[in-house]
Amino acid sequence: MRNLLIFNAMQTPYYLYDTGLLRQTLEVAKLEAQLNGYKIHYALKANSNPTLLKIIAEFGFGADCVSGNEVKIALENGFAPNKIVFAGVGKTDEEIDFAISNNIFCLHCESIQELEVINGIASEKSKKVAIALRINPNINAQTHKNITTGTNQNKFGLTVNEAKYAMQLTSILKNINLIGLHFHIGSQITQMNVFRDLAIKAKEVEKELDPYGKFAYINLGGGLGIDYENPSENSIPDFKNYFATISSIIGKTQSKDIHFELGRSLVGQCGKLITKVIYTKQTDTKNFVIVDAGMNTLLRPALYGAHHKIENATSKEKLRESYSIVGPICETTDCFDDNVNLPTTKRGDIIEILSCGAYGEVMSSRYNMRDLPGCSFLENPETEIAMS
Amino acid sequence: MRNLLIFNAMQTPYYLYDTGLLRQTLEVAKLEAQLNGYKIHYALKANSNPTLLKIIAEFGFGADCVSGNEVKIALENGFAPNKIVFAGVGKTDEEIDFAISNNIFCLHCESIQELEVINGIASEKSKKVAIALRINPNINAQTHKNITTGTNQNKFGLTVNEAKYAMQLTSILKNINLIGLHFHIGSQITQMNVFRDLAIKAKEVEKELDPYGKFAYINLGGGLGIDYENPSENSIPDFKNYFATISSIIGKTQSKDIHFELGRSLVGQCGKLITKVIYTKQTDTKNFVIVDAGMNTLLRPALYGAHHKIENATSKEKLRESYSIVGPICETTDCFDDNVNLPTTKRGDIIEILSCGAYGEVMSSRYNMRDLPGCSFLENPETEIAMS
Repeated sequence: MRNLLIFNAMQTPYYLYDTGLLRQTLEVAKLEAQLNGYKIHYALKANSNPTLLKIIAEFGFGADCVSGNEVKIALENGFAPNKIVFAGVGKTDEEIDFAISNNIFCLHCESIQELEVINGIASEKSKKVAIALRINPNINAQTHKNITTGTNQNKFGLTVNEAKYAMQLTSILKNINLIGLHFHIGSQITQMNVFRDLAIKAKEVEKELDPYGKFAYINLGGGLGIDYENPSENSIPDFKNYFATISSIIGKTQSKDIHFELGRSLVGQCGKLITKVIYTKQTDTKNFVIVDAGMNTLLRPALYGAHHKIENATSKEKLRESYSIVGPICETTDCFDDNVNLPTTKRGDIIEILSCGAYGEVMSSRYNMRDLPGCSFLENPETEIAMS
Repeated sequence: MRNLLIFNAMQTPYYLYDTGLLRQTLEVAKLEAQLNGYKIHYALKANSNPTLLKIIAEFGFGADCVSGNEVKIALENGFAPNKIVFAGVGKTDEEIDFAISNNIFCLHCESIQELEVINGIASEKSKKVAIALRINPNINAQTHKNITTGTNQNKFGLTVNEAKYAMQLTSILKNINLIGLHFHIGSQITQMNVFRDLAIKAKEVEKELDPYGKFAYINLGGGLGIDYENPSENSIPDFKNYFATISSIIGKTQSKDIHFELGRSLVGQCGKLITKVIYTKQTDTKNFVIVDAGMNTLLRPALYGAHHKIENATSKEKLRESYSIVGPICETTDCFDDNVNLPTTKRGDIIEILSCGAYGEVMSSRYNMRDLPGCSFLENPETEIAMS
């Protein structure tokens, strides 16, 4: 009944965020990080919805930004400048200028040329800017090829040899203050041995580049995956195991700040996409359910072949059938999933696509001139806020 | 020098449309269609930029729309209501209501259930609505699997048997006026034999469903491809061959309206994406050019593995090198192409990604919180209009 109330109030399709689950997730992640003395930065690229950002900032997390606009929205929603980092391979001069003007904590630098550009802009402003070098550790994250970022075929980061050269350079660039290293190997990583390998590699690289332990800051990236198959059973990722795995290699914080950039693992399970069945259609080969959300609303299935659990929130039927769940976009790729087992589904039913809190709303577009999805927030069973 | 003037005036990345080429293309397409007595509807899903729509409407073309918003923007930009059709598998009640209220020419109906819904809405408004049945001809368009729409595995249209049932139904649905048939098999089709097969199939289906030739309207879809490899040499698609191929099977118009829905073939070559080199970066394995456009600006390479010709518009270097052209988005999939042979490319150079007039701007998003791309128009070497 509670859900139905929301469904009726909002124009589908829309993203529904369970901010109660978000808070629980943040609480667990924060606690497990603190036990090891680690700090968490939230990766805004997963979801930059202002309501969610405000909650995450309240928990004292930092912000990991990959564009000037992300730095801006982080500042606007409660993240302290000294907890904001700016990463990414293609920072424009304007974006660097904006970040420096706002005195953010650190810029993660990805190339020699970028180092020189940052120094030049900092020099014009008579500032000394903290930077970390992003190292490409050449580790296969064993995740989808599109979201693997830490092998030497990728555009990201510097090799150890390049980093050595960069360090020589920073010693003569007067407006750069090299404070540490940044690692990132990908997203939606579910095998703890990958994080173990990363920690071992990071430790080795750090020892090679900084034998006297001068670096004040090490960032070990994020990448912890979520359970798309069993979102209800595993609504909060295993942060304990994640941080313990890393800690077993590098130990707890001693002389330096050790940061993690979590995105999907913090917000992925708290969001679902709510969509309405426009038509059902039986053909010789398939049983289609046509919903009002499309690949423009949620791109992951079309772009990565990603699988999201799908449920019918309103059907009371006992009989179950196998459906192909498709959107209204005029492309065959506009299909959320084939062979979805649902109770008999009718026009007007409400379909929930689960685990859509990360890389859902942020990737939406107006393809076929469709409106952008709205969003709604569910704090607890008694209260909700609707926004269109 | 002319190009440089535009480059300097506009914030990259942006879409640059050559409206002169667009007019030439429209002229040729219109002429070749008229020679056979055929009519062209422009498929707005390829590009719904208002400036381009106004030009296309001036040529007297109709509009093929796949959402209520597309119907709305077509009306706002000069397309006459009686030249607008509304197709798509997931028309909502609100969209159907809007289309009927605006007295558009025809709704292309894709399922039995939709037929009943349209009749219900028309009945409430005491109107009789023209519809065409979309037939799924079960033809493999021999194009990318994501943009094949006419096989029996796809969500689109009705089989011939379903269409027979739909025709019986329309005879008792008092607010429906069945005027014809619609076929569509996909996009970016370059093999004329596919269109030949379509025409043969359409003729067969029409004869089976309408033995006495009562239908006033046949729509043979679109799907004519463009030359992404040699855009300069083949800037205007071979409309002559396209219409002649169809005409050789079904003849010229006699008693009925024969329509085509062209999108990509009309606008694809007139647009290019203009982007600036932020950094260059040489690694052990690759030579990266990092530009300020990303998969958020142009999704086709990431989504379909699509290939666009890429040129350096400003480099005067004689030496050529092989580059991987990547964007600033924090994903490995954010790569426009590998092994692109360009004159030695430097920070600040302007890169042109060609053949971006179709499925470029319309699929752009704000992923990573990046701004949507601007657009600019080039009418002839002396005049241009810049919009941000």
